[in-house]
Amino acid sequence: MKQEVLEALRNIVGSDWVVSELDQTKGYLYDETELLIRPDAAEDSVVVKPRTPEEICEILKYANEEQIVVVPRGGGTGLCGAAIPTETSIILSMERFKDIIEIDNENLMITVEAGVTLSELIEVLKKHDKLYFPIHPGDESAHIAGMVIENAGGARAVKHGIMRSHIRGVEVVLPTGEILNLGGKLTKNNAGYNLLQLIIGSEGTLGVVTKVTLKLYPEPKYSATLVISFDNFKDAVAAVPKILQEGITPLAIEYVDRVIALEAAKHIGEKWPAEKGNVDLIFMLSESKEDTLYDSCMAIEDICRDCGAIDSLMADNNKDQQKILAIRSNTYTATKHDLADSLDITVPPAYTPDLMNDLMDIAEKYNTKITSVGHIGDGNLHNNILLVDGKLPLYYEQMKEDMYKAARKYGGTITGEHGVGKTRMDSLITHLEPKKLDIMRGIKQVFDPNNILNPNTIFYTE
Amino acid sequence: MKQEVLEALRNIVGSDWVVSELDQTKGYLYDETELLIRPDAAEDSVVVKPRTPEEICEILKYANEEQIVVVPRGGGTGLCGAAIPTETSIILSMERFKDIIEIDNENLMITVEAGVTLSELIEVLKKHDKLYFPIHPGDESAHIAGMVIENAGGARAVKHGIMRSHIRGVEVVLPTGEILNLGGKLTKNNAGYNLLQLIIGSEGTLGVVTKVTLKLYPEPKYSATLVISFDNFKDAVAAVPKILQEGITPLAIEYVDRVIALEAAKHIGEKWPAEKGNVDLIFMLSESKEDTLYDSCMAIEDICRDCGAIDSLMADNNKDQQKILAIRSNTYTATKHDLADSLDITVPPAYTPDLMNDLMDIAEKYNTKITSVGHIGDGNLHNNILLVDGKLPLYYEQMKEDMYKAARKYGGTITGEHGVGKTRMDSLITHLEPKKLDIMRGIKQVFDPNNILNPNTIFYTE
Repeated sequence: MKQEVLEALRNIVGSDWVVSELDQTKGYLYDETELLIRPDAAEDSVVVKPRTPEEICEILKYANEEQIVVVPRGGGTGLCGAAIPTETSIILSMERFKDIIEIDNENLMITVEAGVTLSELIEVLKKHDKLYFPIHPGDESAHIAGMVIENAGGARAVKHGIMRSHIRGVEVVLPTGEILNLGGKLTKNNAGYNLLQLIIGSEGTLGVVTKVTLKLYPEPKYSATLVISFDNFKDAVAAVPKILQEGITPLAIEYVDRVIALEAAKHIGEKWPAEKGNVDLIFMLSESKEDTLYDSCMAIEDICRDCGAIDSLMADNNKDQQKILAIRSNTYTATKHDLADSLDITVPPAYTPDLMNDLMDIAEKYNTKITSVGHIGDGNLHNNILLVDGKLPLYYEQMKEDMYKAARKYGGTITGEHGVGKTRMDSLITHLEPKKLDIMRGIKQVFDPNNILNPNTIFYTE
Repeated sequence: MKQEVLEALRNIVGSDWVVSELDQTKGYLYDETELLIRPDAAEDSVVVKPRTPEEICEILKYANEEQIVVVPRGGGTGLCGAAIPTETSIILSMERFKDIIEIDNENLMITVEAGVTLSELIEVLKKHDKLYFPIHPGDESAHIAGMVIENAGGARAVKHGIMRSHIRGVEVVLPTGEILNLGGKLTKNNAGYNLLQLIIGSEGTLGVVTKVTLKLYPEPKYSATLVISFDNFKDAVAAVPKILQEGITPLAIEYVDRVIALEAAKHIGEKWPAEKGNVDLIFMLSESKEDTLYDSCMAIEDICRDCGAIDSLMADNNKDQQKILAIRSNTYTATKHDLADSLDITVPPAYTPDLMNDLMDIAEKYNTKITSVGHIGDGNLHNNILLVDGKLPLYYEQMKEDMYKAARKYGGTITGEHGVGKTRMDSLITHLEPKKLDIMRGIKQVFDPNNILNPNTIFYTE
């Protein structure tokens, strides 16, 4: 990065908060995307660590005038390379935005600064009247603002939907330097186009989120986790739509190939509790009444048994539940060394069995296996293309394309929760109608006329 | 309207479906906005009644080329003049889009054409496995697509949120003539900016919605309605946040000034069941378990009694519940002859008591009364400015502005559910930061470069 840029940034945030030596910026260049498909970062990027929205205004105004690329950075837990600076950039780290601004016990809302992590949010809420924020995308080091601009999903969408459902307001700095407050502590607001909804899921391309207001809920008192085992994926996936159609709404319904569960358990030094069978469904339930909890558990076990389940175990103490959750949360980390690409295909939940059948055919076509783990209750399984001898297989692009086509056949999307970023850009361009892309690019231009904010994404125009 | 335009429209849809005689178009010129504040319609507008999205494409392409204004029209139940053609327009009536396209029992979704009414939707669902769509804005002659583009709210937002929460997909014809399918039967979808969310609440300015996919839910088995009476509004409004903070989530919490309840009951030939007191809270509850229902009812009664409630009655048979709902649903119609403007202010729910205090002061300042009825559980009360001797009072504009300022003082919005349309355009411009308006106008231009679709709204630029 040019010296004059570093100097200008130092003048805005102070020299302690401008970092340009590679050994100190390295940790800011990548996210959690699989190694062999992630794009290369521009190593001459500079990391700047502002503390106030006003400093961000000044940085963005300067960058906008000088047409320098700015890439906002949160916890670096993303899985699509959205935060990777692929050209020389100002990396705008939100790590100093750490204040819990307000817990509003009357309206059941919390307002936090951008860089508060999910684990910090959970800790703070524990101390306050057992209030509860339901979304949990897995990695608790995610920044809350990152969860906003990526519209994080996670396991609990079966019952609670996604981030979008619980975000009530944001403060955002536009690429042109204005600060806007969008939304508020409101249940209803129809005052013009909903710009808040547009910022959610915009992957750091429309503005820098500095503050977030989230809806909170009373903590459900009773919880249980069921692990139900099946001989094969067909029986397991067939059970899920039947449960949802009965009106049973667990917190989460997760699918894990046994081979993955065993590896994840080993990775964290635990033992996977199920032994029989080859695939497991994990049902997490939370209810405000104990009898509702047990009634739902029994109904789920009954339906699964009818669908061919061969074993079932229930954990209702906190320790056992946490153990199962920890194993599930580590499936990606534990198996990443084998993964070429963990896809994020999502289909209408009832069509998961059909999709899975098609994926088995595709695996056979390429003489490989597809392992799967994920949020089957949402139709959002992460289907893995595996490395071959530690390398991307030659058929990788073609196989991925076949899998995306299968998803679309069932009305699915190529990314349910991880986002487009820089790794799914080409695929999205293939699978999105050109007119939609035109409109998205038009919107990008309204917010960011000089295309300075995280430009190398789908909204990039040459 | 010019003869050549009529001719061109006849060529597209057939001459049976182009109506230009005023006696036949009259019913298409206005919506349900209060008489003395609604804008005048251009009476030389023509009504066209297409049957397919392709016909709408042709109409819009033609109108776009010729720069003729097009105003989409649904059930005409809107309350902000969004569907009033204030300049010579092609009124695009969606009344022939009546097909129920699919009830998907597996994914619990329904897809309907734009012109299916809410009452038709409810009827169809009754016949199908007791599936249930939770949103109910009051007037069942609303078209589903109208509920989409106005982001309808209604009483049940306490438990179920607003239309936005339940819309999964739309087919939309853009002003430039392209047909787009946005969203799908998906729980999660992060493939680019969320254009579906942008269409929701866009008030017919970004595209013509032709088809809608909604999420359905199993019908809750047990329901009850409580009418709890108070001497004064202060006691009543104070009870509401306390109930929500306890984690009790009724379907609806409605507030009615007794004078309005009595008038609405009389209007439909019924008797309001409560006698003591001056204001009532109506709690509607629906649960899948009977004991949860009664536990919640008892907890609500306890909290209300602690807050000074003087009487309480419970209706748990269908007939009595329907009667109370019918009276509540008719409060607007029954009192409309007295209303200058029924505002749609919304504040964070816990701040309703403060807002109501401020409104009482404002009423006193103008030596008048403000009556109130509405969705107090959502912070969305409709506060009424009354006519004086059948006329708009001289203080109308100033008093409204004072009320809007009070709403903003508590982080509120000038319209929670009714929308901006043509009646709240000036107020929104006063209360919205200019940069937000710039962005909204920029977005409008991306979708509608010639500004032909419902142009006389906030997004209008001279």
